Amino acid sequence: MIKKIKPSELGFGSFATKNSQRVMNADGSANVKRIGGPLISASDIFHKLTTMKTSRFMLVVICVYTIANSLFAIVYYSIGVENLGITPTGIVWRDLLEAFFFSTQAFTTIGFGRVNPNGIATNIVASLEGLLGLLSFAIATGLIYGRFSRPRAHLLHSKNILVAPYQRTKRAIMFRIASTRKHSILIENTVNVSMGINTLEHGEIRRKFYALELELSRINFMNTSWTIVHPITEESPLWELEHEDLINGRIEFIVLFKAMEETTSQTVIDRFSYFIDELVWSAKFISAIGSSNEGQAVLDLNKIDDFEATQLPPWRENSHATETEKDKTSASKS
Amino acid sequence: MIKKIKPSELGFGSFATKNSQRVMNADGSANVKRIGGPLISASDIFHKLTTMKTSRFMLVVICVYTIANSLFAIVYYSIGVENLGITPTGIVWRDLLEAFFFSTQAFTTIGFGRVNPNGIATNIVASLEGLLGLLSFAIATGLIYGRFSRPRAHLLHSKNILVAPYQRTKRAIMFRIASTRKHSILIENTVNVSMGINTLEHGEIRRKFYALELELSRINFMNTSWTIVHPITEESPLWELEHEDLINGRIEFIVLFKAMEETTSQTVIDRFSYFIDELVWSAKFISAIGSSNEGQAVLDLNKIDDFEATQLPPWRENSHATETEKDKTSASKS
Amino acid sequence: MIKKIKPSELGFGSFATKNSQRVMNADGSANVKRIGGPLISASDIFHKLTTMKTSRFMLVVICVYTIANSLFAIVYYSIGVENLGITPTGIVWRDLLEAFFFSTQAFTTIGFGRVNPNGIATNIVASLEGLLGLLSFAIATGLIYGRFSRPRAHLLHSKNILVAPYQRTKRAIMFRIASTRKHSILIENTVNVSMGINTLEHGEIRRKFYALELELSRINFMNTSWTIVHPITEESPLWELEHEDLINGRIEFIVLFKAMEETTSQTVIDRFSYFIDELVWSAKFISAIGSSNEGQAVLDLNKIDDFEATQLPPWRENSHATETEKDKTSASKS
Amino acid sequence: MIKKIKPSELGFGSFATKNSQRVMNADGSANVKRIGGPLISASDIFHKLTTMKTSRFMLVVICVYTIANSLFAIVYYSIGVENLGITPTGIVWRDLLEAFFFSTQAFTTIGFGRVNPNGIATNIVASLEGLLGLLSFAIATGLIYGRFSRPRAHLLHSKNILVAPYQRTKRAIMFRIASTRKHSILIENTVNVSMGINTLEHGEIRRKFYALELELSRINFMNTSWTIVHPITEESPLWELEHEDLINGRIEFIVLFKAMEETTSQTVIDRFSYFIDELVWSAKFISAIGSSNEGQAVLDLNKIDDFEATQLPPWRENSHATETEKDKTSASKS
Repeated sequence: MIKKIKPSELGFGSFATKNSQRVMNADGSANVKRIGGPLISASDIFHKLTTMKTSRFMLVVICVYTIANSLFAIVYYSIGVENLGITPTGIVWRDLLEAFFFSTQAFTTIGFGRVNPNGIATNIVASLEGLLGLLSFAIATGLIYGRFSRPRAHLLHSKNILVAPYQRTKRAIMFRIASTRKHSILIENTVNVSMGINTLEHGEIRRKFYALELELSRINFMNTSWTIVHPITEESPLWELEHEDLINGRIEFIVLFKAMEETTSQTVIDRFSYFIDELVWSAKFISAIGSSNEGQAVLDLNKIDDFEATQLPPWRENSHATETEKDKTSASKS
Repeated sequence: MIKKIKPSELGFGSFATKNSQRVMNADGSANVKRIGGPLISASDIFHKLTTMKTSRFMLVVICVYTIANSLFAIVYYSIGVENLGITPTGIVWRDLLEAFFFSTQAFTTIGFGRVNPNGIATNIVASLEGLLGLLSFAIATGLIYGRFSRPRAHLLHSKNILVAPYQRTKRAIMFRIASTRKHSILIENTVNVSMGINTLEHGEIRRKFYALELELSRINFMNTSWTIVHPITEESPLWELEHEDLINGRIEFIVLFKAMEETTSQTVIDRFSYFIDELVWSAKFISAIGSSNEGQAVLDLNKIDDFEATQLPPWRENSHATETEKDKTSASKS
Repeated sequence: MIKKIKPSELGFGSFATKNSQRVMNADGSANVKRIGGPLISASDIFHKLTTMKTSRFMLVVICVYTIANSLFAIVYYSIGVENLGITPTGIVWRDLLEAFFFSTQAFTTIGFGRVNPNGIATNIVASLEGLLGLLSFAIATGLIYGRFSRPRAHLLHSKNILVAPYQRTKRAIMFRIASTRKHSILIENTVNVSMGINTLEHGEIRRKFYALELELSRINFMNTSWTIVHPITEESPLWELEHEDLINGRIEFIVLFKAMEETTSQTVIDRFSYFIDELVWSAKFISAIGSSNEGQAVLDLNKIDDFEATQLPPWRENSHATETEKDKTSASKS
Repeated sequence: MIKKIKPSELGFGSFATKNSQRVMNADGSANVKRIGGPLISASDIFHKLTTMKTSRFMLVVICVYTIANSLFAIVYYSIGVENLGITPTGIVWRDLLEAFFFSTQAFTTIGFGRVNPNGIATNIVASLEGLLGLLSFAIATGLIYGRFSRPRAHLLHSKNILVAPYQRTKRAIMFRIASTRKHSILIENTVNVSMGINTLEHGEIRRKFYALELELSRINFMNTSWTIVHPITEESPLWELEHEDLINGRIEFIVLFKAMEETTSQTVIDRFSYFIDELVWSAKFISAIGSSNEGQAVLDLNKIDDFEATQLPPWRENSHATETEKDKTSASKS
């Protein structure tokens, strides 16, 4: 049980849900249901269309294109295909299809002209379709640029968060991150780690949140990988907590990463969280850095998750840790 | 009357208008008439076109499209519709209409070609119209992307600002905000509250402005709702002011909210103000957070305005407030 | 002569030009000739095209359009206009003109089709022209959006900088700024004032630069106008300098204004400078704020330059200034 | 050998590669091989296409255009060119060519119409091609705007870093930067210099990194050139290190430059590094600033690299340096 440390105000409130769910999902989204409020907004749609996968985005584009042209085809057919400068076949689906192809030629502004509008009604519809078509492509341009220029961290984080031996303070919380960017490096990287834990207060379960102090919370360049370390000092809310305390408290670590992407000068952000299931007690990371034959440093992103079991030193046994243990604990920065 | 507290310099000046109007309108715009200066600028138009409602924007687009094509239709008609490769009907409105439809086909660059330019004058106009049409859609693309990418806070704030009981200092000013975003959360949220109040100085009414100290002016994540609290300490300009003092002083609270939207890394801003009519004396908010059947936290945005009447403790009666009152006042962070 | 105050490092160096020209031109550009370096770069052109006046930009667009199509017309003519699906007239200028109009229809992608490419050479040129045309409009779209979205302060500053009487320190340097924006206000406004002055050092003229301390260098909102005040304290490099000292020193004030435009969350910047010719000795500003009949505050941007002559108090006569003088000096914030 | 100074945590780790390669390449990219991770991502492609040279970008565009149309030509040919409204010649390459030209007219949405789609299959392909064409140009628009609006420092740095005499501390590390921008100046310029050096620790080579303190790490305006100076004080890791120590340590200087470009309010960044080969022992820069006939300051960017050999004072000989040496060392800010 955490005793004296004052919780931090992080904006999570102190509301503990019935079965102590995590506050933030693993992907960084809030685990909160939101009722009331506007049903749907243009910026929600924009958000969705700029963040979905490229394949899904293409599907949406093709569907919208097909539906729009089908509707216009029905309108042209209703007015009469004879107004498209062609002789109707009298067969419904063939005439509809001809109207559909005419519609695509108006919508994309190709306008081959073999099929072309005659008569007032058809002309009005065609001129509106041309406008709508161009506006649609203006929207598509905006969406595509929005997708391109969206700031993304392209950050990889280790699947697990470890409670590892650590030279100075005996034990530390550790996880590891790396950038998957090939062509640019992140500068002015900062990391912010918060912790949520259930505590019993006047017989009621309250979820308390703490900002965790890090060994290093900012590095100028992220050249290789970065192991983030929270040393469990006596000032840490985790001091003297054992594995079952963390399980009972349904502990959760919330990580906010911020950096500047140097090609675009954009601030990139990543959020993720580790829940109790992702915590590994008594383990340490295996270095992901090696050297190529030519002597160049090599970072193997596949090894970012790799750790090995180890022994945790006791909390209080005083400073004469064996040399072997010191070696084990010095792998905090790979 | 406020005595000893020094006003803050916030950029509002100390000019009190004749009938003590608010400095900032409820929607955050300045309540200042501006004369002189440029009549209209391109960036004013851009601002208007990117901030107006989508329906109005569509209307503007259709109007501009119709007017531009009508003008070109008149020009083509004046040159002679026989230059459009068709036989004139001799009926003015029909020929004008034919010219109008030709114009739309040039403007949108469809160019079906049944109707097409012949002769030098018509060709020159048509080639200019093609250029103008494409530039118009370039402008439309810019406007549409400007509308999409405009940073918006999508913030909801409680309709009222309350003078509520508050554990530590007896009384506090409180209002509540929440984000209506579904797909992304706001990070690094900061709030800044200023207060304007009329005071009598050498027989003249001056409007004085104060920056109000908040219990918490920054939270890392806005997961649910956030109750902003200004505790009325002895250092507050509101210390020992009663309801009629606030009414006489035509008090106004000016709020500036800033956060970072994590998908786009944009800074989003919201400004709003509470005037004396929106202040409720002696009330407290009702929590807007509940729990779903599955144990997930639920934020009900419809309840964000909800408050209930309560009793305010006296200013100076010393620290032995009853347990019941303590409970009442602890609802500051929901 | 300034004696003891240490100059600040601002990046201007200490190089004094032969006839002591200003370091920064009135419009904020650097008064430095730059030789060597790249002759012209794409981003120089982009910069120019996004900052030039709209009328000039339109002229550039029309010129480029005319020249590009003229060149293509010559190419089509060289290949032979009979390949455009029309019967050549044999008259050079008429055939060239026909080729020009065809070219515009390919460049804008209208493609009416009466005139259309036949033969391999003409078809190749036409397909390249269509590509070039669309890329040109992609560039135009980028430029137009760049022009729209360019952050602009839209700041007005008083034509003159004054040496005015000032309550606390006897004298102060003052100038006035205001925003001309109608629809949005600037937030988090900061101002930074530097001063350059020639001094004699070992018989050589050196230009020294000082950062000037301001009475107020930041305001949250720029609702009306803002008078920026540098009080001439004993710590100021201007302490006890008289009008002729400033003239001899060819004094220059360099102003850097920064704010956040709230609709777009863009940082807007303005730079300008006051040279000795724009300094008025012994004057004070006339308020530009009034009240409308309905009681609304009114800011008259035409009055932003207005000042009136006044008397400066002596440097050292001690603190019992008459009440009248106090009134005169209290107009620092309008 | 550096003794007492504690290395700084900069994110480079302490991993020394076999043959002590530089950590950062001269162009600022990381000298790290990255294995694992995603093979290729959309944002990698976007990054590449917005940073490559204009001539290469144009080549890519023309290639994509040609390949796409060739593929469509094959499809149209397979369906049968008689469906394009023309009489097939029966000669394969001529019919393929006709199909290719038709394809370009659909792709660019010109649609002259002499050649035009008949039959269902051809019409379906043509309507898809029109969509694809417009989307391609939407992508091109995004890429072109991305290229235009990419923040670039346009910074020039001296080819060499010097160990120069320096008044206060005897010796200093110096290099020089200048902006090549013609139309705008950089404001709020900051520079950050780190140093990497190999040291022997327990018989193992470790690369250690130090943040170097600068005489001036920020200037408001970059009007002319800026000489960045690290004075080698007793607190510097370079104190009393001689030329061979730097060579043995395979010293490397890593520079991070940040500024704000005032036209676009963009943060611009430049990174570069000096390796031991680029270090010149005992030299000083020659001023790159002169005066034009009209008295205007002139910055010659061709001279930015120019230095001359000079003598370094000994480390410890105490403060009575001759007047001549003082003159030599005062050229730190040009």
